[in-house]
Amino acid sequence: MAEAAAIGELLLIGIGTGNPDHVTGEAAHALRTADLVLIPRKGADKADLADLRRDICGRILGADGRLVEFDLPVRDASGDYLAGVDAWHDAIAAAWRAAAQRAGRALRGGAGPRVALLVWGDPSLYDSSLRIARRLDPMPRIRVVPGITALQALCAAHAIPFNTVGAPVMVTTGRRLRDRGWPEGVDRVAVMLDGGGAFQALDPAGVEIWWGAYLGMDNQVLIQGPLGEVGARILSTRAEARRAHGWIMDVYILHRHGGDTGAAR
Amino acid sequence: MAEAAAIGELLLIGIGTGNPDHVTGEAAHALRTADLVLIPRKGADKADLADLRRDICGRILGADGRLVEFDLPVRDASGDYLAGVDAWHDAIAAAWRAAAQRAGRALRGGAGPRVALLVWGDPSLYDSSLRIARRLDPMPRIRVVPGITALQALCAAHAIPFNTVGAPVMVTTGRRLRDRGWPEGVDRVAVMLDGGGAFQALDPAGVEIWWGAYLGMDNQVLIQGPLGEVGARILSTRAEARRAHGWIMDVYILHRHGGDTGAAR
Repeated sequence: MAEAAAIGELLLIGIGTGNPDHVTGEAAHALRTADLVLIPRKGADKADLADLRRDICGRILGADGRLVEFDLPVRDASGDYLAGVDAWHDAIAAAWRAAAQRAGRALRGGAGPRVALLVWGDPSLYDSSLRIARRLDPMPRIRVVPGITALQALCAAHAIPFNTVGAPVMVTTGRRLRDRGWPEGVDRVAVMLDGGGAFQALDPAGVEIWWGAYLGMDNQVLIQGPLGEVGARILSTRAEARRAHGWIMDVYILHRHGGDTGAAR
Repeated sequence: MAEAAAIGELLLIGIGTGNPDHVTGEAAHALRTADLVLIPRKGADKADLADLRRDICGRILGADGRLVEFDLPVRDASGDYLAGVDAWHDAIAAAWRAAAQRAGRALRGGAGPRVALLVWGDPSLYDSSLRIARRLDPMPRIRVVPGITALQALCAAHAIPFNTVGAPVMVTTGRRLRDRGWPEGVDRVAVMLDGGGAFQALDPAGVEIWWGAYLGMDNQVLIQGPLGEVGARILSTRAEARRAHGWIMDVYILHRHGGDTGAAR
């Protein structure tokens, strides 16, 4: 039997942060054009997320059998961070290809199926799908559909602007905030991928925080206030919610008052 | 005759960057709940944008008379930047209130109408609507619905990630890039609100640019490459497009290779 064709086209579709109503018209149209939709299983802990993807597909596609589940490889977190991520991305690319080939044998003759992945938030923001896609050989045509990010959902939920007038914002990770402290040249910092409490590395004086978890979902949690007053409550709320749900996604914005880096209130 | 009630609730609804398919389910639902939708007129130059808002309303609401057009005050750009913005925001808040009161007399008895504004991109990102809303007296309840930003539309159109692995990104303005040069601590910078060519203030060596205008619209333009090679073409393309359309909205991402600030490729 001949080898099944590789992935012909890959659609990376941003779906927002858990509210099915975050889905755009463009995302729905793109999903309807897919031959296959790959749904990653990350184990029981994150079953909610696979359920959400199935729910979104069900609303848009009905029950039509285009969904293909696959087991997402596990990242080796023991060694060097970047090397571990690199090997993990290779393994995920192989898992995408294998899942698409298993399911795609009957499709499109030799052209290779059009495969969609539903990406949490937006495919461009601290998401690996684009980097993984570039490891596919042969590399398929790639189309990206933007989605609502966790940072926008956070700002909307708190009804705050991302930036102050004419001033810059640093978007960074919990790891970097912990390792390097407050970034130079900004009074406002948006923090993603924090495993928990990187803000504890900062002097809280004059710093305000807007924190949110499960943004856009029914169990959304928001806390806002001076970091020195609410930091401990964020940590305990986060730990408790993580225990209750088995997983957590959270982001926050920090603003330092009285800095001299040009921010207007 | 009694004074009409003030705005009871204000919906700031992100509509994305010009592609009506950027509109989310949440935005459409919110729009349908509004008593009035305020449509700013900015003069003939930006007629496309008022048309886009009318088009989106027409698709979602049909022809039902909830649209209220008003003339957006003009900003005095002659004096201090922040002071000029401050006075302008006061004038816009007054224009919102007056338009809502004129149109809202017959609505909701004394409770004040639920008024929607369709915000280009996302209400949190370099947009003034939230700050203007806080000047309304009495201040209405404010609800923000996130929308696709120009930065996400840019990344999607170029099929690039916003950030490199684990590394930070500075989101800043053309004015700051011009005045202060490359920001400290980052190899990647996203630039908004550039009146044109702020990147000329940089040493282009080792810098790559991804530029886009009219993102998501039929007349979208994209240019990408080493800044030293494509910078001049971006400037001429931008000037020509601006002449042809009477207005332009563009954003770009810059990446500096060989920096030592922790970015992975």
